[in-house]
Amino acid sequence: MTLSESGAAHPLDQALVLAPLAPHRFSGQPHPAYANMVGPYGGITAAQMLQAVLQHPERLGEPVALTVNYAAALLDRPFEIEARPARTNRSTQHWTLLLRQPDEDGTDATVITATALTAVRRSTWSASDAPLPTDLARPQDVAPSGRPPQVRWPGRYDMRLITGHMPVTWDGSEADSLTRLWVRDEPPRALDFASLTALADVFYPRVWRRRALRTPAGTVSMTVYYHAGGAELAATGAGYLLAQARSQAFFNGFFDQSAELWNEAGHLLATTHQIVYFKE
Amino acid sequence: MTLSESGAAHPLDQALVLAPLAPHRFSGQPHPAYANMVGPYGGITAAQMLQAVLQHPERLGEPVALTVNYAAALLDRPFEIEARPARTNRSTQHWTLLLRQPDEDGTDATVITATALTAVRRSTWSASDAPLPTDLARPQDVAPSGRPPQVRWPGRYDMRLITGHMPVTWDGSEADSLTRLWVRDEPPRALDFASLTALADVFYPRVWRRRALRTPAGTVSMTVYYHAGGAELAATGAGYLLAQARSQAFFNGFFDQSAELWNEAGHLLATTHQIVYFKE
Repeated sequence: MTLSESGAAHPLDQALVLAPLAPHRFSGQPHPAYANMVGPYGGITAAQMLQAVLQHPERLGEPVALTVNYAAALLDRPFEIEARPARTNRSTQHWTLLLRQPDEDGTDATVITATALTAVRRSTWSASDAPLPTDLARPQDVAPSGRPPQVRWPGRYDMRLITGHMPVTWDGSEADSLTRLWVRDEPPRALDFASLTALADVFYPRVWRRRALRTPAGTVSMTVYYHAGGAELAATGAGYLLAQARSQAFFNGFFDQSAELWNEAGHLLATTHQIVYFKE
Repeated sequence: MTLSESGAAHPLDQALVLAPLAPHRFSGQPHPAYANMVGPYGGITAAQMLQAVLQHPERLGEPVALTVNYAAALLDRPFEIEARPARTNRSTQHWTLLLRQPDEDGTDATVITATALTAVRRSTWSASDAPLPTDLARPQDVAPSGRPPQVRWPGRYDMRLITGHMPVTWDGSEADSLTRLWVRDEPPRALDFASLTALADVFYPRVWRRRALRTPAGTVSMTVYYHAGGAELAATGAGYLLAQARSQAFFNGFFDQSAELWNEAGHLLATTHQIVYFKE
């Protein structure tokens, strides 16, 4: 757990506290510092799902892939995560996960499903074919983005937008769907798999940018592929990541989003994809 | 089931035959016409997983997302697929799936895990920001690709390669990772969700192209996002799809692949992503 100068745990580390209940079962809860308009920020929920794998006593290796399906709205009350190694091989391990919570009627219900892959990586030839965009302003030279007062989670990130701001006028004028920003935890915190996972969901809905229309929208499935090990994440420290996202298709109520996250040194740490519901 | 002129079912339809065993449980088997070097072609296994959802009596709507995790090598023997609706909402439904099979020792083992999202789509504003590449040769003007004699599944596809052929000389010379081809089922078959899913895995390993090094490689997780409904797939008929794939990152034993599939009319039917193991 990362402690700030005041000695208090970082809000992310507070959110990641999961208590073992029984074999494969952990209890946790949404953290108010990561609250979204309704329920928690999806990125923090993805990080909590991964955390159940990370602290599982049978875990083999480090995260390579994670898919989180947001099946229903998570309520602001305790939940239980079940994380099971479905198949353990010599160097890879496949996980199935469920998050359950009593619904409004008090009935236990599945709210999140997920799968994950962890692996003991071996050193191989490596290369990146998606280089960090050139001619970027340095994070220090970009003004911090304003934060919407009615939502708490953006306050947990230091975001410095380079291109693709949220529309100022919601006038339905079409644009591209690209957003590019420097981002890190607020307060700063050394990068690890959990924080990288949370960052993978940091973009506002692409349809807002694309159409300048504030239609209701929400991620229904997110996949993260990790292209770094724990050592590379640790070396990134509390530095900024360049995060970039855009959509390829909007069709009858759902659109996709593909995104990349590089550290300042240019290592492509993660690629991530979503399918997102939108209303109109 | 599609019948050919001779009256025999199409090999894909033969492969998609799943027998209900009990609620949420179906039995199936690999089809020899889709055999890979070891076990079946991954695309046909993904299609079989989706088929369990498609023929489930409780299914709501059409596929929007599918993630299939290849946890171990599927053996050439019968298997059982368990497909459960984990959460059913008003217009969306989340599925969890497992494929189990006795292993070499006869012990029942999990070989595939998967999640899926189906939804009753409503008509909304739609747009594609990834247009079909221009200046493409028509499928009829491209020579059919040669098929490796030692592997059966490529014979089930009519592939017409435009760019990004498999290296002729395995000399380690680096190239880009892009492959672009026209492709359809062989024999031709009207497109549906199952055949589109199988087509999403049609590319040979990107690392072979990128490095001209034939290192062992295999998909460990594949996600498909569907950007069309059954009506649009049916309208595509037995026409060719333009399929395009490339990688963004190769890191210590795993690389990613992102791909798009358009019909000839230019509708982006699916975007799909993989994380793939490679040995060196």
